[in-house]
Amino acid sequence: MELGRLNHIGVATPSIAESVTFWREVMGATHVHEAFDMPEQGVRVCFVDTPNSQIELIEPLDDTSPLTGFLAKNPAGGQHHVCFEVPDINAARSAFEALDKLPLGPTRIGAHGTPIFFLHPRDMGGVLTEIMESPKDGAAHG
Amino acid sequence: MELGRLNHIGVATPSIAESVTFWREVMGATHVHEAFDMPEQGVRVCFVDTPNSQIELIEPLDDTSPLTGFLAKNPAGGQHHVCFEVPDINAARSAFEALDKLPLGPTRIGAHGTPIFFLHPRDMGGVLTEIMESPKDGAAHG
Repeated sequence: MELGRLNHIGVATPSIAESVTFWREVMGATHVHEAFDMPEQGVRVCFVDTPNSQIELIEPLDDTSPLTGFLAKNPAGGQHHVCFEVPDINAARSAFEALDKLPLGPTRIGAHGTPIFFLHPRDMGGVLTEIMESPKDGAAHG
Repeated sequence: MELGRLNHIGVATPSIAESVTFWREVMGATHVHEAFDMPEQGVRVCFVDTPNSQIELIEPLDDTSPLTGFLAKNPAGGQHHVCFEVPDINAARSAFEALDKLPLGPTRIGAHGTPIFFLHPRDMGGVLTEIMESPKDGAAHG
């Protein structure tokens, strides 16, 4: 397996609305996608484009969200995960499993509509890592 | 100011040597640059290329390093900062200052040989943010 594109960095926030204002007005973002809910994951998501990658803003949908604990420790938000692309999610999963890096739960459809899984920070140098199958249309931002 | 390239994500590690092995053998990195010391910053640095960006591995040079506290809280390492490019570091500095986002210390030369400054997480949605002037040769990885 070869290291793929850094698809996005995931940034937790207590408020996507306020974060979008920050990314537009402070950081100069010009391409902010529509926010949408991922109720199965307990999060609301909004992608902000950089010229070569994306920021994924993630906000908890309610107090049972997996993000709630993160924001309790980091009330202003902060760096949550990084996401790399792979050409074949099943091959990638098998490769990580063979190295005893066990994905957190089953492979599922992620925010870009392609299969993803997460790897635990304890197995990944302290970095919560998302592995995402590249969009089939070859789009940089699928 | 327009949001620039995500030049790199900074990942703190107790051992660049072990992290390089991880990035090569687990993540499949094929382009790992030579590590080098930045004694004025108290860190050793090593860049790992992704197809569209870079990972900056950073290890404390000694116990007085600014990274020492981070690693005390995160012994395995973890996400430390993100770095965005700007065309003109002085213009960027003025723009952030005008928004009351005060850079941490003076502008200095960063790991890519161009001027940089850092912004405090409390001003940046919890994200320690490096602002870096793009390399003048236009190289993606200057």
